[in-house]
Amino acid sequence: MQNIKLMIAYDGSRYYGWQRLGNTEQTIQGKIENVLSKMLKENIELIGSGRTDGGVHARGQVANFKTSVAVSPQDVIQYCHYYLPSDITVYDAKIVDEKFHARYNAKGKQYIYQIDNGIIHNVFERKYRYHVPQPLDIDKMKKASSYLIGEHDFRSFTNLKSKKKSTIRTISKIDFIQNDTFIDISFEGNGFLYNMVRIITGTLIEVGLNNMLPEDVKTILNKKERPLAGPNIPPHGLFLQKVFY
Amino acid sequence: MQNIKLMIAYDGSRYYGWQRLGNTEQTIQGKIENVLSKMLKENIELIGSGRTDGGVHARGQVANFKTSVAVSPQDVIQYCHYYLPSDITVYDAKIVDEKFHARYNAKGKQYIYQIDNGIIHNVFERKYRYHVPQPLDIDKMKKASSYLIGEHDFRSFTNLKSKKKSTIRTISKIDFIQNDTFIDISFEGNGFLYNMVRIITGTLIEVGLNNMLPEDVKTILNKKERPLAGPNIPPHGLFLQKVFY
Repeated sequence: MQNIKLMIAYDGSRYYGWQRLGNTEQTIQGKIENVLSKMLKENIELIGSGRTDGGVHARGQVANFKTSVAVSPQDVIQYCHYYLPSDITVYDAKIVDEKFHARYNAKGKQYIYQIDNGIIHNVFERKYRYHVPQPLDIDKMKKASSYLIGEHDFRSFTNLKSKKKSTIRTISKIDFIQNDTFIDISFEGNGFLYNMVRIITGTLIEVGLNNMLPEDVKTILNKKERPLAGPNIPPHGLFLQKVFY
Repeated sequence: MQNIKLMIAYDGSRYYGWQRLGNTEQTIQGKIENVLSKMLKENIELIGSGRTDGGVHARGQVANFKTSVAVSPQDVIQYCHYYLPSDITVYDAKIVDEKFHARYNAKGKQYIYQIDNGIIHNVFERKYRYHVPQPLDIDKMKKASSYLIGEHDFRSFTNLKSKKKSTIRTISKIDFIQNDTFIDISFEGNGFLYNMVRIITGTLIEVGLNNMLPEDVKTILNKKERPLAGPNIPPHGLFLQKVFY
């Protein structure tokens, strides 16, 4: 058996997200599995580093699959390039140790939430940036974000329904990258809960708009109540940037 | 009468081009005229700096219109933002001298043709870059482009049907901007003929692929025969970047 690791980028606009669902093909995992299964003439199961929600994009999703066919990674890339829709690409592939598991071995992830803070939105970025036309106080947003660094219970910042699963995660880094009217907020951590990056960014935007104080973020974190945090902002600004192993 | 100058950006993917056509609305000019006419309750005629073809984008299209209504430029921007589709924006407006004419007064233009030269295309740029997966010899392309600088008869590089109109134009500058696997070729000149930037770039790509020699471009220019030049490459890589006044 060969174990093959893939680097995947996708524009999530047209999809229900990463994870294959029952009988619909409109997921990233489903699309790639279909192409690989067709190529290798066996049923391929793709293991992703984690799910991304409907409408969320990825520049550096990682996945692996096992196959009994002696296929070359280069052929996998080329076949995928030919048969996948143009909004999904497998841009790298390599043979890895048979023990490599894209989800279990992932040590951390980087997500980037992209904001267009111009008064009028940039037409070419409209599908990849959330448009906030009002001025944002970035210094206050940075201050607010500092309370989130470290290991915390992020229950206030997730739409996870289950109360049984742990909501403790570690955020190691939050960076703000400003370029003209564009603001990218980069999050690095050991894992992120359902909707967590979008709710955190939605909360930071509330701070930037002066609807909340930076210190409120500390209070929200401590209270562990989802309704206190900001809105779950749209998926189209969110990118899975990198998975760390 | 007020004369109002607009700065316009658009994603041309869904449109037949700038110029209003008979009874179809699917043009940039048509879309904006409809919104302005509705706002000002009079028939507005928009004068663009020039046409762009179907599928071509603009970051800095300039247009002007005259109105008897005492409207503020700020209101024009806001109304357009509200009523235009999200792939067209009027990002600036100001009152100008009544003699200003967006087409007649244009002294020159800058166009940028965007290429994605990665082996696998970038999914987020797929609508804004022409994908050339084979390696391009940029130095040869630069050499080839140098023969086009200055005043020349560009008949070989246009699909203009009429033999009566002058095909003499001046290109003042051609710049190559490389960023990782992306190549932007910027053209500045006093005017560009029908399909000229796309045919020139198509020819430079032939040189970059070693299907032509840099010196061939000089010969093609001198022979004034369209079939000698390279292909008219797709519109989705082309941007009207700036209009000079």
